[in-house]
Amino acid sequence: MTPTARVQAAYDRIEGLGRPEIWIHLRPREEVLAEAAGVDPALPLAGLVVAVKDNIDVAGLPTTAGAPSYAYEPQADAPAVARLRAAGVVVLGKTNLDQFATGLVGTRSPYGAVRNAWDAARISGGSSSGSAVAVALGVADIALGTDTAGSGRVPAALNGIVGVKPTKGLVPVTGVVPACYTLDCVTVFARDLQLARTAAEFVEGPDPADPLSRTGTQLPPPPARPRIAVPAGEHLNGMADGWREAFDAAVARLAGAGTEIVETDITPLLQVADLLYGGAFVAERYAAVGAHLEKHRVLIGADLDPTVAAIVLAGREKTAADWAADTARLAALGAAGRAVLDGCTALLTPTTTWHPTLDEVAADPVGANARLGRFTNFANLLDCASLAVPAGFVDGLPFGVMFTGPAFSDRALAALAERFANPGLDLFVVGAHLTGQPLNAQLVQASGTLTGPARTAGGYRLYALATEPPKPGLLRVTEAGRDAGAGAGHATASGGNARTGIEGEIWRLPAAGFGAFTAAVPAPMTIGTVELADGRQVCGFLVEPYAVEGAPDITRFGGWRAYTASA
Amino acid sequence: MTPTARVQAAYDRIEGLGRPEIWIHLRPREEVLAEAAGVDPALPLAGLVVAVKDNIDVAGLPTTAGAPSYAYEPQADAPAVARLRAAGVVVLGKTNLDQFATGLVGTRSPYGAVRNAWDAARISGGSSSGSAVAVALGVADIALGTDTAGSGRVPAALNGIVGVKPTKGLVPVTGVVPACYTLDCVTVFARDLQLARTAAEFVEGPDPADPLSRTGTQLPPPPARPRIAVPAGEHLNGMADGWREAFDAAVARLAGAGTEIVETDITPLLQVADLLYGGAFVAERYAAVGAHLEKHRVLIGADLDPTVAAIVLAGREKTAADWAADTARLAALGAAGRAVLDGCTALLTPTTTWHPTLDEVAADPVGANARLGRFTNFANLLDCASLAVPAGFVDGLPFGVMFTGPAFSDRALAALAERFANPGLDLFVVGAHLTGQPLNAQLVQASGTLTGPARTAGGYRLYALATEPPKPGLLRVTEAGRDAGAGAGHATASGGNARTGIEGEIWRLPAAGFGAFTAAVPAPMTIGTVELADGRQVCGFLVEPYAVEGAPDITRFGGWRAYTASA
Repeated sequence: MTPTARVQAAYDRIEGLGRPEIWIHLRPREEVLAEAAGVDPALPLAGLVVAVKDNIDVAGLPTTAGAPSYAYEPQADAPAVARLRAAGVVVLGKTNLDQFATGLVGTRSPYGAVRNAWDAARISGGSSSGSAVAVALGVADIALGTDTAGSGRVPAALNGIVGVKPTKGLVPVTGVVPACYTLDCVTVFARDLQLARTAAEFVEGPDPADPLSRTGTQLPPPPARPRIAVPAGEHLNGMADGWREAFDAAVARLAGAGTEIVETDITPLLQVADLLYGGAFVAERYAAVGAHLEKHRVLIGADLDPTVAAIVLAGREKTAADWAADTARLAALGAAGRAVLDGCTALLTPTTTWHPTLDEVAADPVGANARLGRFTNFANLLDCASLAVPAGFVDGLPFGVMFTGPAFSDRALAALAERFANPGLDLFVVGAHLTGQPLNAQLVQASGTLTGPARTAGGYRLYALATEPPKPGLLRVTEAGRDAGAGAGHATASGGNARTGIEGEIWRLPAAGFGAFTAAVPAPMTIGTVELADGRQVCGFLVEPYAVEGAPDITRFGGWRAYTASA
Repeated sequence: MTPTARVQAAYDRIEGLGRPEIWIHLRPREEVLAEAAGVDPALPLAGLVVAVKDNIDVAGLPTTAGAPSYAYEPQADAPAVARLRAAGVVVLGKTNLDQFATGLVGTRSPYGAVRNAWDAARISGGSSSGSAVAVALGVADIALGTDTAGSGRVPAALNGIVGVKPTKGLVPVTGVVPACYTLDCVTVFARDLQLARTAAEFVEGPDPADPLSRTGTQLPPPPARPRIAVPAGEHLNGMADGWREAFDAAVARLAGAGTEIVETDITPLLQVADLLYGGAFVAERYAAVGAHLEKHRVLIGADLDPTVAAIVLAGREKTAADWAADTARLAALGAAGRAVLDGCTALLTPTTTWHPTLDEVAADPVGANARLGRFTNFANLLDCASLAVPAGFVDGLPFGVMFTGPAFSDRALAALAERFANPGLDLFVVGAHLTGQPLNAQLVQASGTLTGPARTAGGYRLYALATEPPKPGLLRVTEAGRDAGAGAGHATASGGNARTGIEGEIWRLPAAGFGAFTAAVPAPMTIGTVELADGRQVCGFLVEPYAVEGAPDITRFGGWRAYTASA
């Protein structure tokens, strides 16, 4: 798909969706098409279409931060935008947000409440509302957001996409309207984990113009059997119906992917969350945009969102001594939180806690918002990296989980999320791929690990094929055939073994390894479904029936090893 | 010297000095003697006597922080104290300080102004006033202080001792009365750099009870030719008479010790200093002890120092938005400051700027204090490590310089200070130690480096000794002998070479290597002073006169190499 074709498709989709509230400024189609036509197709992200949250500067478009009265004309792209453009993307426009990035709901904007990609009666989440929905609806390949309290993660979860919240300072905040200046991060949305990570790595990097920009060595990748902390049950109370079960399923999936799960009391982390809005740090929002609000008080309720204005203006009342006391409290809670996570690669939590309707948020704007941030609020205050990924659906709406780790754990978190998304696929082998047999090295090369021995259900027959190296062929006789087999030509040779099953091994391979391995399997071997003696259905080696014509039936040996040992 | 003898000597000296203001609580001699008698002499710091600033807990003694009304009875030693005691030290008592560690002068205490160790009419500097003077006067071997704005460095400089201000968080602040909680460091004083560093490494280490405790990998040691930043000349204006020249001499000394000096505009660092008291961060002091001051307002002017009270209570007026704005400004200044120091191992500055009298401070308590902190105030706000070391005397009073580097540069700074304190000693060699000669390896083993070739002044004679390996003996004939030599037995053999000098090499050795090398020189060789052709006087090999009796005079060859080549 050429860059111009991608752009055409994006605009066609925008027109078809009927979601104008996604955009604060959408560039004209012809202008973007002209730009796309000039993109060097050799660039790594050539022609991918990008949406940018409207608190991040894009040269040529006003930056509003969700408040028309605040708008200014930036002279240059923010570095995050410039770096994506240098990699070949084209920017479609600027997206709606909770005003001044103050909110997790997506409704606090004079440009309209952003509706969820999956259910227009529900909120998108925010504050990076338009960016998340543009990606979730397939309009943009990548979107930029920001995250101070969860703004780059909550809307990812509520719309079923990936949200990367990098370590603070990895992506410059130059050209970004501050929310809480020392806590703000630029974030990346994409539907696919790999693309999200790729884009995040393009936007990372030092910037002399950003005093908070920093570089550091990424923590090592997770060990073979990483320890993952999960909240103790009480901290999972009060979520939407079915979300607790969805989270438990996600934990089980990760446990099945070779991680050790450690149930943890995350009380100190949740207490940090209380400090973000309940404490003095909200004064950073006043320092950022308080003067604008003071000057334009008459616009509150129209241009300026009343909930946002109330939050920001309350910051004026906090004293520096309050700040000092909260800083000390934060240090203590942070130390306690780190102690709780000691020895774990990451904390796994639900990304957010419920999926409210627009009406529910309107009825209780601050309370609904607070519920959304339970698991996201602490991360920036405690200098954590965090990665929100989809984890299925509950009642037809996306459910998401989040990996959170210390600063510079970005890549380790990505590796965990990859393991979660692709926990490994099981393959049942019965012949030349068994441990010690000639082709076993192929499984090891595909990053496979031996899960253990297993046995087929009854009703399978094993044949010695005339291949090189010698291989057996496993063939299921029909369900009826289990009995029918007794009357077939090889019935006498097989005896009871067609009932008790054939011995083999289960190997677990990462999805990519599994795919490459399967693609290389030569005829007459096939990969199909094998029923095991314990009732499980796993992928496994079978053989095309033509190949067993005239081949000796060795079912009576009960397995390839016993047969070869007897030969 | 046994632990009890050390303690006896300390108390005898305390009694003889007439400096009672050093102490807030001095333990009874007999009690400390009994403790010293029980010290395991195998411990690394066995029997060293220690003074502890009275804002650091010592079990069994009240902690006052310089305010009788604030006194409490701690249940345990602060970790810094406990760790020194575990290494074998005995604590003499608790020392006077600027109240609540708020000041750099040493006069803000109801327990009396602490007078300088070298001139009782001048201030000690503070806030760790009593600790610094106790060490400078030889009462204590080691003292603990604290440092928020320079309190562990200014008094070190004014009393001619070493002050170690570690990276923030390396030494726990558990059991320390906070000044600015997020900025406070426990510091170490000693007269000797090595002992100061040893003690600092004993008190370092994590503490689960201290949320700000942290560990980290020390930066690598300085390169062979480190770059050292020094302030541009304008930033050195306004110091006491003669201090600029003393600093220039220190810079020259360091340049001579193989470092590259980079003149630097440190304006951003000095602007950070303005933020410490001029900005909102002073509210941390209010958060720490403001409630005590509010409750005991009637004691201001008596128990509570009025200058300290005014500073702390002013912190109440700052808003959290002020704090947020100052935090942003600090980030910008910090980035600019780091950029200025980029590529340099450390910044070298004077430690402080003048040496006021008690009367000068009384006349302008705040202004005098501010002048003292010019080069120290920024370090903790910018997360720097810093090390103050003596650098000679100006008008009979100590002058000191300071190495400041990034967090975890503690050991690199110590290596620089070692190089400064011991810049290397030159040794002139003329025989078997020359490059390529049999004993040259001894110089290399002693960490020597070849400075270059050199030649003696006239008036020296060289003899071939009957040693194994063969060596020459260099002997100076008297000044008069230059001419007298013309009439001596070997005059005809020497010709003009007694005037034009003997060839050799200058090797530079660290003091310890020089000492070990010299101690191992066998008779009849000696190490004395040799006058070079360029007029310099350097240490060099000479020979005892008895050994040249009957030895051939080889002066006419002009050097050992030419002689051996001719043999």
